[in-house]
Amino acid sequence: MVEPYDVVDLIRAKRDGGSLDTAQIDWLVDAYTRGVVADEQMSAWAMAVFIRGMAPREIKDLTLAMIASGERLDFSGIGKATTDKHSTGGVGDKITLPLAPLVASFGVAVPQLSGRGLGHTGGTLDKLESIPGWRARLTNDEFLAQLRDVGAVISAAGSGLAPADGKLYALRDTTGTVECIPLIASSIMSKKIAEGTSSLVLDVKFGSGAFLQDPGMGRRLAETMVQLGKDAGVGTVALLTNMQTPLGLAIGNANEVRESVEVLAGGGPADVVELTLALAREMLALAGLPDADVEGHLRGGQAMDTWRAMIRAQGGDPDAALPAPAESETVAAERSGRIVDLPALPFGIAAWRLGAGRARKEDPVVHAAGIDLHVRIGDLVEAGQPLYTLHANDPARFARATEALEGALVIGADEDPVNDGGPLIADRVA
Amino acid sequence: MVEPYDVVDLIRAKRDGGSLDTAQIDWLVDAYTRGVVADEQMSAWAMAVFIRGMAPREIKDLTLAMIASGERLDFSGIGKATTDKHSTGGVGDKITLPLAPLVASFGVAVPQLSGRGLGHTGGTLDKLESIPGWRARLTNDEFLAQLRDVGAVISAAGSGLAPADGKLYALRDTTGTVECIPLIASSIMSKKIAEGTSSLVLDVKFGSGAFLQDPGMGRRLAETMVQLGKDAGVGTVALLTNMQTPLGLAIGNANEVRESVEVLAGGGPADVVELTLALAREMLALAGLPDADVEGHLRGGQAMDTWRAMIRAQGGDPDAALPAPAESETVAAERSGRIVDLPALPFGIAAWRLGAGRARKEDPVVHAAGIDLHVRIGDLVEAGQPLYTLHANDPARFARATEALEGALVIGADEDPVNDGGPLIADRVA
Repeated sequence: MVEPYDVVDLIRAKRDGGSLDTAQIDWLVDAYTRGVVADEQMSAWAMAVFIRGMAPREIKDLTLAMIASGERLDFSGIGKATTDKHSTGGVGDKITLPLAPLVASFGVAVPQLSGRGLGHTGGTLDKLESIPGWRARLTNDEFLAQLRDVGAVISAAGSGLAPADGKLYALRDTTGTVECIPLIASSIMSKKIAEGTSSLVLDVKFGSGAFLQDPGMGRRLAETMVQLGKDAGVGTVALLTNMQTPLGLAIGNANEVRESVEVLAGGGPADVVELTLALAREMLALAGLPDADVEGHLRGGQAMDTWRAMIRAQGGDPDAALPAPAESETVAAERSGRIVDLPALPFGIAAWRLGAGRARKEDPVVHAAGIDLHVRIGDLVEAGQPLYTLHANDPARFARATEALEGALVIGADEDPVNDGGPLIADRVA
Repeated sequence: MVEPYDVVDLIRAKRDGGSLDTAQIDWLVDAYTRGVVADEQMSAWAMAVFIRGMAPREIKDLTLAMIASGERLDFSGIGKATTDKHSTGGVGDKITLPLAPLVASFGVAVPQLSGRGLGHTGGTLDKLESIPGWRARLTNDEFLAQLRDVGAVISAAGSGLAPADGKLYALRDTTGTVECIPLIASSIMSKKIAEGTSSLVLDVKFGSGAFLQDPGMGRRLAETMVQLGKDAGVGTVALLTNMQTPLGLAIGNANEVRESVEVLAGGGPADVVELTLALAREMLALAGLPDADVEGHLRGGQAMDTWRAMIRAQGGDPDAALPAPAESETVAAERSGRIVDLPALPFGIAAWRLGAGRARKEDPVVHAAGIDLHVRIGDLVEAGQPLYTLHANDPARFARATEALEGALVIGADEDPVNDGGPLIADRVA
């Protein structure tokens, strides 16, 4: 096969601040998928994109080219509206767990293809695998049957979706080209569009525990992704949400499942409930049900019923005991006062070091490991009052987790300003 | 081995416009040589360097780290001053061939480690291999004996010198990170300093046939390299020379050897003679002989005697007939007038397409292929007068060579301005 372009010319064009045209981007992505363009060439191009940026038309072309690199699912035959949610990831972010069954309890299909965690933000599949018997990998027939019968499916994305993105994503992780809006937006949206949902709600996080800490970058990412969704005919809305402090009280895997079940039972921490309801309303509105009584389905048990059916359909026992940690260690307040800082990042890193996350893709996670917070930012505490409990199976892990938490939680005077990053839901982009 | 750095942190620092410290650069180069840093990581870093630049201290550190990645030769035991020359490469640049024996004829050692050509600028070893029997590869003992006895050695650099540079140089070629002063300067100077010369003259070319066409970039490269040489205790001078039009009349391999022998015999084209003498004077001055009568050694035959000894010492027969082309094609002037443009680049590309150069490292070159010019820029010609002759072994090559030359040579009116790029030696940096 005679290649129509020399990749070095395309790298040089981007390096010097130019744009690639549609045919050039199509070829670049296809040639990278075929292995004609080598990793070291793609990483040089990605670095040039990182520094020089991409025009909106280039980002759209890149997204479409990555979709075209693999199969594209189509759920139009199941006779229900489909809607999906994607979060850019945060500390304690278990929202998918209560959200998918809540939305599905209204008769809408939620085909939620999720990933595993890498680094300090956990993965939805890792959390669900705390449930004895539950399995992430389904055949196509199982997936479609569950989507029809239960409505909610949370499963592992097959490698056939946007394989070019899979390759580029892994490459970016090792080459310092991660925090780049054109590359993040096209990566997320190529997978979501290939997954065949007819509408999509994005939870774009900012603040200490988020991937993009700066709210301005979060907003630009949200705007870029909403436009990509619209261009592809997928109704897309984004909420810009605050990840300055952990979401909820549980950070880990089994404990996040437990907290999710509390929300499904009508309880749970106020912030987890607020975000679950807000995202559910957006998803249901896009699916044609703008007036759905989402709080009613939490109080009334319909969301819980769908959760139980969803877990059972994937081999899990919703009533089984969750794994318990071998060792726990509680940290108490050294003084009385107000919790003025409780940043998500060090707590995410500490939970990761306790075993809740993985350093390499092939590592297992420890489902019982993690952190339970006993206080929230802004709370008044007394000296000696428990602040949080660390859980691990190997007690040797406590030292390195404690190191990450050194100086993180700050107890100030009652009248000190509280570094909570502002309201939970900062804005909406549609 | 526990690595002291994460390469992603170093890539990100350079990506964001920061500097790496000495220990970080040392580690990066060492880890790349060991294979701990992968090609795709190094190419992302190189692209960040290309766009963000490097501070002078970083360029120095990079050069020293690449020298430290391999062995460093030492000729201090041979009892002669050593001096070396490096050209950034041009079309028709055979200067090393007459220069090395001319300088050595004054009792100075010239350990000239050279490369092969890639692209439109030829390689010194390729040219010398036109001579029946001549071999580029010598053992260490052969090299030292010839340096002592003859004074001039032109041979292939061993792969043990600056291996990190060898790896990075190959990577830059395929990743669009070539034309970058910090990377060019550290690449050239790490090899030259590792080669153990005590002084060095650089021929930095600019104009259509040069690697860096812009004279301003050429000057910055020269200044950067001269400073690197001084920092390493190697007396270094650079001449900034004009490569707008081919150097001499012969472009190829065997025909460039023939032209070099003419110069050694006291004849040859004026520009080749001028540059040979200027570089010889600089080298001899650095070696402690500022008043050497270089013209006298061309006229008097001492340079030719050293040439013959040098060729013989490496197995070559200086009296053997050089390879002759199977096919030749002469192009004549279509009109009368003045040659106002004769740009080096298309002639370099045409010679390359005729077989004088190689597209891939492993390709052979055709020693008899190339171009003989019959006119120089500024000459007055009559319609029908021969302008140049193309040589090839395979006549099918004439069409693509002719395509490269389309519109290149321009015959204007007698009074038209001549695009010769100015004087041959534009400046001196010391």
